[in-house]
Amino acid sequence: MLELRSYVGGKWVAGQGARQALVNPATEAPIASASSEGVDLGAALEYARKTGGPALRALSFAARGALLKAIADAMQEARDELIELGISNGGNTRSDAKFDVDGAIGTLLAYAETGTSLGTTKILLDGEGIQLGRSPRFHGQHILTPRRGVAVHINAFNFPAWGFAEKAAVALLAGMPVLSKPATSSAMVAHRIVELIVEGKLLPEGALQFLAGAARDLVERLGAQDVLAFTGSGDTGERIRAQPNVIRNSVRVNVEADSLNAAVLGPDVAPRSDMYELFLKEVVRDMTQKAGQKCTAIRRVIVPAQVAQEVKSDLAELLAVIKVGDPADEDTKMGPLATASQLAEARGGIEQLGGKIVFGSAGKILEKGFFISPVLIEGPGPVVHEREVFGPIASLIAYSDNPGEIVARGNGGLVCSIHSEDPAFIEHTVAEVAPWHGRIYLGHPKVELSPGPGTVLPQLVHGGPGRAGGGEELGGPRGLAFYLQRTALEGARPVIAKITGAKQP
Amino acid sequence: MLELRSYVGGKWVAGQGARQALVNPATEAPIASASSEGVDLGAALEYARKTGGPALRALSFAARGALLKAIADAMQEARDELIELGISNGGNTRSDAKFDVDGAIGTLLAYAETGTSLGTTKILLDGEGIQLGRSPRFHGQHILTPRRGVAVHINAFNFPAWGFAEKAAVALLAGMPVLSKPATSSAMVAHRIVELIVEGKLLPEGALQFLAGAARDLVERLGAQDVLAFTGSGDTGERIRAQPNVIRNSVRVNVEADSLNAAVLGPDVAPRSDMYELFLKEVVRDMTQKAGQKCTAIRRVIVPAQVAQEVKSDLAELLAVIKVGDPADEDTKMGPLATASQLAEARGGIEQLGGKIVFGSAGKILEKGFFISPVLIEGPGPVVHEREVFGPIASLIAYSDNPGEIVARGNGGLVCSIHSEDPAFIEHTVAEVAPWHGRIYLGHPKVELSPGPGTVLPQLVHGGPGRAGGGEELGGPRGLAFYLQRTALEGARPVIAKITGAKQP
Repeated sequence: MLELRSYVGGKWVAGQGARQALVNPATEAPIASASSEGVDLGAALEYARKTGGPALRALSFAARGALLKAIADAMQEARDELIELGISNGGNTRSDAKFDVDGAIGTLLAYAETGTSLGTTKILLDGEGIQLGRSPRFHGQHILTPRRGVAVHINAFNFPAWGFAEKAAVALLAGMPVLSKPATSSAMVAHRIVELIVEGKLLPEGALQFLAGAARDLVERLGAQDVLAFTGSGDTGERIRAQPNVIRNSVRVNVEADSLNAAVLGPDVAPRSDMYELFLKEVVRDMTQKAGQKCTAIRRVIVPAQVAQEVKSDLAELLAVIKVGDPADEDTKMGPLATASQLAEARGGIEQLGGKIVFGSAGKILEKGFFISPVLIEGPGPVVHEREVFGPIASLIAYSDNPGEIVARGNGGLVCSIHSEDPAFIEHTVAEVAPWHGRIYLGHPKVELSPGPGTVLPQLVHGGPGRAGGGEELGGPRGLAFYLQRTALEGARPVIAKITGAKQP
Repeated sequence: MLELRSYVGGKWVAGQGARQALVNPATEAPIASASSEGVDLGAALEYARKTGGPALRALSFAARGALLKAIADAMQEARDELIELGISNGGNTRSDAKFDVDGAIGTLLAYAETGTSLGTTKILLDGEGIQLGRSPRFHGQHILTPRRGVAVHINAFNFPAWGFAEKAAVALLAGMPVLSKPATSSAMVAHRIVELIVEGKLLPEGALQFLAGAARDLVERLGAQDVLAFTGSGDTGERIRAQPNVIRNSVRVNVEADSLNAAVLGPDVAPRSDMYELFLKEVVRDMTQKAGQKCTAIRRVIVPAQVAQEVKSDLAELLAVIKVGDPADEDTKMGPLATASQLAEARGGIEQLGGKIVFGSAGKILEKGFFISPVLIEGPGPVVHEREVFGPIASLIAYSDNPGEIVARGNGGLVCSIHSEDPAFIEHTVAEVAPWHGRIYLGHPKVELSPGPGTVLPQLVHGGPGRAGGGEELGGPRGLAFYLQRTALEGARPVIAKITGAKQP
């Protein structure tokens, strides 16, 4: 059985003490173990700050972009192996595992390209120069420089490759060294990626460290120049932000947490129309892809009252053909949940949502493994706007006039989708829901290759206000800002011109 | 004696219960009183959200900018009256009071102009449109929309006009209603400004409310669409950010707190040179303007060891001519501290700093009033990098090679100034200190009208990492972002083009 190790201080280090078992969620068979006990976290953080940071800052954006390209290439070469790990350790179907690995590679390549376009500079200009006085000599220019600390990344279990890559790509390109901690239960994919990077010497020493096992007191060790990006539950996000050192040192924290993503069907959309069929297809994909374990998955299906019965029976019909089973089997369409505790959480959530189950059940469907069927709920209680049930579970909610108001009850989310061809309805609903969301997906049957609302694109921001954690990641060059300090330079124009000779982001 | 009232729900409301006395800090005579007890804070917040927000959002940026212009004009008309209130309630010299009032007017006018330049749109585009797929039909566009909550502003005692205006201008221009709470001790100036706005009906109802007296449970009432901008002590900033509802709802909080601003003299600067004289002048101005009660004031004077003795005697000579006394007297150059507790804090701070007092003393200098002399300390203890002493107190620190490393010990600040004519030294020091600061001021004797490092300009960001609170205000249009939600629109290009028809910020 594989013992996952941590990569810190330029060495692979085995943890001590009790080890956490990693299992195949389809069979419950243990396949690896991990422990972070005994790993010197303070030394790892200092190694990043003292060795990794200077090495990255010595490189231009273009050079850092080239490092990302090399990581993407190495992952591409090991793609099949990574996909197999996603199937066995993540309970992913082959298609789900590809989604994760290809998402990671695509994000690395997108930021590699951003690096190329930023060029050989090491300092970024933010906006134009500003004349501050009557004379043009008195001048201002905002610049962006990498923070001198370490970027700690705490990732969720659901996207071991993509979650790792989307955070690491942006931090490394910005010039900050990374200490990446995956969720232990599904850490095998990220562990293998880090092995590839270390074996290939793809990054300068100290630029990337990896912690297998519990985070222990990692967060309590962060200071004013460090940053922390966290993806996971709202409860853990709250605990991180309440840490006294985080508050006292103004540690920059990005939280991407719970989200009750809504899909809104416009009143103009007739059943059987292309837009209607697209809507159904996207709801079913979001409910079942990764067994609904996506932070962006649709949880609330908000449809006009007059078509609610039709939507219900159509969704039930489409869900009925989703074969649930071992993702190692070719014809399986949906795998198990990731862990026993996720399964228990999902079952508890279904009970708490109330309403009437109109498709599936919370019950046991296979002898072994953390399986659950897709579940569609009609008429849930008001808790549907509060509790994220992280699995293949969605609730159907009928509206009579203003769906935007219902969407907003979720108190902030990552993404909301709108399917309509009525420009006035779209415009009104966008205005209603935009302040509550990081992204709005406008379904359109004629947009080729559109990946649906559940897919995070590196070019667009990912995050959301309120319940979703108030954070923001990605968004092309925007994502770099989290790892950079903006500083206004104020003084004589020729002096400032001498310091900055750099491209704008 | 004037009883300050709160302006909430479209009415002036007197507080109940025990009232806090506002005094003239030069004479200790009570001149007004305030209490917020009995003011319905929940109703005030709802009034902002339900009445003020929609009214502001119905206006274009240009129209909101015009409102700011009208406020600036009203303040300009009442300038003498406001200055008199600054003298009597703030202990400001006439010059200090002008600095505050004119800073407020200048900031309002700067954002009025930003409003004009953003034009008649109500929705801001963030960046260019992005082609997301192989086909240009699949399109992304980031937009910025005003948050649907209320902007709570908690201001410091030192700039009752400017502090009010710099926050209110940006929030109102962004389209968010404001509830402004000044520090009670010096609230008379802000109270009068709000009276001018109400009397002149310069803003839509609900767009601006005002709380005289304690904040009570104001912070505990904020939700996911509200924002809070706070200027004041680091301790209070920490308490605000630790509030469970603030953490749970991801309430956006901007904290501008303690800062051990440093002034660095380059090793190339010869005593008696123009650059040297400018450096001395700016240190003395920052120490004594507003009796050193500026968040941006220089606390650490970092000079080459070989000129430290010369700098010390030159500063002592310049400080000796600063006449401390009642700011109502024409020849007074420095007034008292704002309150008895500020005076006690400053005295305690001087003691804690250690080292040798080479100018002034912590002792009593006048029979009545909260007066203290300027104090220059040589060779302070390491606490000089931790404790902000909020008064006319600075410490002289000699360096032999890398002043940037000493500056960084402050753990994050608002502004650092560098006086040098050696491009290599400037470039190196900027690189060292930029990640720790929101602003770097490059002194240059030939830059006409340069206001020194202690002046906050609306065009440049104001804030800093770490100890300074990790926040950012102003910076021209950048400041609007705090009050806006960024949302990525993803979909068919023609649909997105229809929704957005707006100018870029």
